[in-house]
Amino acid sequence: MDPVREMTQIGQRARSAARQLARVSGAAKNAALTAMADGLLRGAASLRQENAKDLHAGQEKGLSAAMLDRLNLTDARIKGMAEGIIQVVALEDPVGEITGMKPRPNGLLIGRMRVPLGVIGIIYESRPNVTADAAALAVKSGNAVILRGGSEALNSNRAIVQILVEGLEKAKLPQDAVQFVNTTDRAAVGALLSMDRYVDVIIPRGGKGLIERIIAESRIPVIKHLDGICHTYIDQDAHPDMAVTLTLNGKMQRTGVCNATETLLVHASMAASFLPVVGQKLKETGCVMRCCPESLRHLAPLGGIPATEADWDTEYLDAILAIRVVASLEEAIDHIEKHGSQHTDVIVTQNHARAMQFIREVDSSSVMVNASSRFSDGFEYGLGAEMGISTDKLHVRGPVGLEGLTTLKYIVMGTGQTRG
Amino acid sequence: MDPVREMTQIGQRARSAARQLARVSGAAKNAALTAMADGLLRGAASLRQENAKDLHAGQEKGLSAAMLDRLNLTDARIKGMAEGIIQVVALEDPVGEITGMKPRPNGLLIGRMRVPLGVIGIIYESRPNVTADAAALAVKSGNAVILRGGSEALNSNRAIVQILVEGLEKAKLPQDAVQFVNTTDRAAVGALLSMDRYVDVIIPRGGKGLIERIIAESRIPVIKHLDGICHTYIDQDAHPDMAVTLTLNGKMQRTGVCNATETLLVHASMAASFLPVVGQKLKETGCVMRCCPESLRHLAPLGGIPATEADWDTEYLDAILAIRVVASLEEAIDHIEKHGSQHTDVIVTQNHARAMQFIREVDSSSVMVNASSRFSDGFEYGLGAEMGISTDKLHVRGPVGLEGLTTLKYIVMGTGQTRG
Repeated sequence: MDPVREMTQIGQRARSAARQLARVSGAAKNAALTAMADGLLRGAASLRQENAKDLHAGQEKGLSAAMLDRLNLTDARIKGMAEGIIQVVALEDPVGEITGMKPRPNGLLIGRMRVPLGVIGIIYESRPNVTADAAALAVKSGNAVILRGGSEALNSNRAIVQILVEGLEKAKLPQDAVQFVNTTDRAAVGALLSMDRYVDVIIPRGGKGLIERIIAESRIPVIKHLDGICHTYIDQDAHPDMAVTLTLNGKMQRTGVCNATETLLVHASMAASFLPVVGQKLKETGCVMRCCPESLRHLAPLGGIPATEADWDTEYLDAILAIRVVASLEEAIDHIEKHGSQHTDVIVTQNHARAMQFIREVDSSSVMVNASSRFSDGFEYGLGAEMGISTDKLHVRGPVGLEGLTTLKYIVMGTGQTRG
Repeated sequence: MDPVREMTQIGQRARSAARQLARVSGAAKNAALTAMADGLLRGAASLRQENAKDLHAGQEKGLSAAMLDRLNLTDARIKGMAEGIIQVVALEDPVGEITGMKPRPNGLLIGRMRVPLGVIGIIYESRPNVTADAAALAVKSGNAVILRGGSEALNSNRAIVQILVEGLEKAKLPQDAVQFVNTTDRAAVGALLSMDRYVDVIIPRGGKGLIERIIAESRIPVIKHLDGICHTYIDQDAHPDMAVTLTLNGKMQRTGVCNATETLLVHASMAASFLPVVGQKLKETGCVMRCCPESLRHLAPLGGIPATEADWDTEYLDAILAIRVVASLEEAIDHIEKHGSQHTDVIVTQNHARAMQFIREVDSSSVMVNASSRFSDGFEYGLGAEMGISTDKLHVRGPVGLEGLTTLKYIVMGTGQTRG
């Protein structure tokens, strides 16, 4: 079928399913999710079979070992998907909560009710577990979802979605609440991004290239996750051991993730005492240090190399750290404003006033005092699960949990009031 | 100067001003607003002079009497602008509020802080008072604003902005926090809509044509206000007098506004008793009644005429009411879903279960029980002022007050926690 016509039909069915799903009870949604988790566990063997087709095709196509690993659905990962869904079951239903009901002088009671967004389009790359994660969050928050996965995972994703849809059916929820774009035709994505009548928001999950293409093309609002150029700033009143620990953890606990620290800023008065200590540890863990002239004085003996201007604007996603000495908190904040990506930034300090100034003045989705940047994460924040981390300012910033997939409508309770 | 280059400079200055404005105290912002209001009152004579130029040019151009009236800055309207700003002074500063700080098991305290969006671009049509209203809300919420008014009000708007900027200067706030696009060159709008680096959100205020052009062209998120096709539904358990009063008030209290009722839905069991009574009143107030076949049986004697399919999808903004008899609440909700614009919809009923079903199931920015649709308004909701009414689902729905011009960032307070 013509991809535009097919996507339109998917969109219409999703809109209709979303209307039904918005009205069902939390118990019914949880029953569907539980059936989905159960289905994934019971269907593990067939999932692995379908996944093997994708792995085989990936090998033929010459995918990298890392890509093949991400594509691989082991029994442990299938169990992980099921457990992820069960965690979503345990979360409170966000839909229907009424807040802020206050009386106006004329007796009207006015407040807001939390409601689903409607239809969410997810466009993602190779990891098939996104299929289950995203669908579970969408269903729990009362939204219908249209899933468009990567071509290399087509068989795996199709098999997962089939199990998810069986879960919807078992709980008597509309099966069109979770739909899968069963084609690798690129025109289908274009059609999806233009259906503002049927799709309320697009959430891309994948590399920067994918996200930038989608932003450029989409006529539908996009909740996007771009760079994570995260900073850790060591204030003059930082606890010395904590400064070392948080730098190491922020940079090296896991390097290929968006909330890893990419740039270390150090107050000038700390440079001589702190840099040799942290430098030694970074060297021991295999981290490359790209240094400003001042920090290089302390770190060249430990293998530090000169940074270029481009380093301050680079998301390494690797065991590389840019290091810069600054004269003041203000200079640190200016650096973060100029070079950061408004994702996550950390100050290490025992000084209350500077902690609060950093919190107030750094305009990032997460601003932290005395904690590792690696905590910037929906699970760590207690959201239970996340659809990604938004680097947008509108609608939702930072980890996107169930609340980020809902909106508030005004409700007004009167007794016949008229406007004069 | 080349409009793209000029707009880029305006954008850069706005970004810089926004950073400063985000950090200033509520007292400083209020001092600036008070000076602005004072300046408008003291500058009334010169404002009227500049306005006279626009009025003269408008007459030459053959603007309609209605357009000329909207353009006209009388002393009363200048006073109204000043009073509007003073009302904004009285509102609580939304910036810096911290909510939801909760401890995680590892001792991290995690919550959110309300912060400005940054730079707001406002593109509006003829009424010059929007200049003062929008600037006041932007400054109070800590945002810089770039104002692009209609060409027919160029002199008036420029004079108003000059006074507003003097107010900023008096309070020692950055004068680039309020900037005016002092050209009627259409390329300037194109440039503004493409500066996603310097502008965080675009808010258009004007007719549907303007808004649709902006949505199509903008690379920046738009908070938009499209149609107001509002419904009032008379349930079988409606109080008869209240049903008449709310219909009349919703439709006729003011007809040219987005929250006027455009379609009346009536439960079949109420048709015979209610329609002749409300029809008589509508007739007396000069309202045209466009009726479905069933309602026409009751209203033809009072001048009702047959509706066409197009009537259900029309925002009249006039003394015209579409009237339809429905068999059930479900049919009413289906009609609203199919034909409404998700703006404001009302049920009139004494029945609790159906009131709550309507509240839950109607997916509009405002859903009301036993109140006139005309209440859908920032002032009436207690927001103090509004930048418009959002018919979007993301970020903000319904009246856009100070909160809608802000966002939440996560803040994390630790004691050296690392991720394991």
